[in-house]
Amino acid sequence: MSGTLHLVGVGPGDPELLTLKAVRILGAALVLAYPATGEDSALALDIARTHLNPAATRLPIAIPMTLERGPAQAAYDAGAETILSHLRADRDVAYLCEGDPLFYSSAMYLLTRVAGQAPVCVVPGVTSLTAAAAAIARPLAARNEILKILPAPLPDETLRAELAAAPAAAIIKIGRHFDRIRALLGETGHAESAIIVEHATTAKQRITRLADFAHDERPYFSTILCYSGAETWGNREQGE
Amino acid sequence: MSGTLHLVGVGPGDPELLTLKAVRILGAALVLAYPATGEDSALALDIARTHLNPAATRLPIAIPMTLERGPAQAAYDAGAETILSHLRADRDVAYLCEGDPLFYSSAMYLLTRVAGQAPVCVVPGVTSLTAAAAAIARPLAARNEILKILPAPLPDETLRAELAAAPAAAIIKIGRHFDRIRALLGETGHAESAIIVEHATTAKQRITRLADFAHDERPYFSTILCYSGAETWGNREQGE
Repeated sequence: MSGTLHLVGVGPGDPELLTLKAVRILGAALVLAYPATGEDSALALDIARTHLNPAATRLPIAIPMTLERGPAQAAYDAGAETILSHLRADRDVAYLCEGDPLFYSSAMYLLTRVAGQAPVCVVPGVTSLTAAAAAIARPLAARNEILKILPAPLPDETLRAELAAAPAAAIIKIGRHFDRIRALLGETGHAESAIIVEHATTAKQRITRLADFAHDERPYFSTILCYSGAETWGNREQGE
Repeated sequence: MSGTLHLVGVGPGDPELLTLKAVRILGAALVLAYPATGEDSALALDIARTHLNPAATRLPIAIPMTLERGPAQAAYDAGAETILSHLRADRDVAYLCEGDPLFYSSAMYLLTRVAGQAPVCVVPGVTSLTAAAAAIARPLAARNEILKILPAPLPDETLRAELAAAPAAAIIKIGRHFDRIRALLGETGHAESAIIVEHATTAKQRITRLADFAHDERPYFSTILCYSGAETWGNREQGE
């Protein structure tokens, strides 16, 4: 006998972008687990707040924000053990995560620890990627173009090579890497066309051309979208 | 005075994967436009069927399934004109599309034709990409890996180069390109690990390892997911 771990994507930020399935599962779940990065900071929980079963046991997984990965992985170890104790007692657990559980999400750390020991069910969600595209109302890529998803922590040489050849790219996990990324986008010809979307779909949403981004700021919860043919996108498709 | 064109993603197939926002907009829309590929074939409409305003005017855009692009583009021209006539009469229009409107969707053809003439609002949806990952309960990419989205109609040499260097890739728009794609995956070392997900999140969902796919079949409405470290993914992350 085992409960099921539901990995539930709650979407990019707008509470109205939860799916009906996420709402159903979160409304019924008796145990709600979620990543917490501080005392009062649990973004996935905030997004889904109005849809949670009020009687549910809450299980924050406090993720230390350190550069070394050991402490965070130890937190997932401990969190997975607590989740497994509920599953073994035949209680379903829902783990909330921003965006989609399998698109660069912390849910993968729980999946690896729980899969094989208990049933896992994934509820896909709207990603910050398509939310950023929606915010600027422009396709992520043209008809048959390659789209590359590039995590900002990758080494300079990797990013430089991919960006130089990319018709369309989205840079994610920007955080403290912003200055490097800005320089690399300049080197690879994307300085003019790249657009920064912060806090997509929320009240704090902000859209800025990279060229206009003030140098003393850093974008948070952001995606940078690049197009080699940015200014001509409409024209390119128009005649087709 | 102008109505607004809402480009509404209805998700990958499961009607429960519509967002609350999509449900609200489709329930209120007085004009519903959608791509139709045959007399009774309008997948986006089928997905959203239970959430549509029953009093709405229906506006199918019949897309000829030809290899030349001219006839389809003419259909979008005509569809956009009809949509614009409603918008100019101050009626909002909702255009339904599978998945997300800006992730390789036909919605881009309407966006280019209507943007600049009327307000356009995009409602992002769950993509077939993350739905396919959910179906096999495996992340699309590991922590800081690049993810490449590769449309199957691209030339062999482009796909070969990208696949050879890809830690993680998703191949979309497979259709009649399946034999080419299978050969290219074999050449680039992905024959063993690639997984085909058809009709993700629907009753017709089918998951098959590429190596096990019967040679006389062709996968439809499918995504192929590749991982260079497929079989060791769990182990790779375990120790982190």
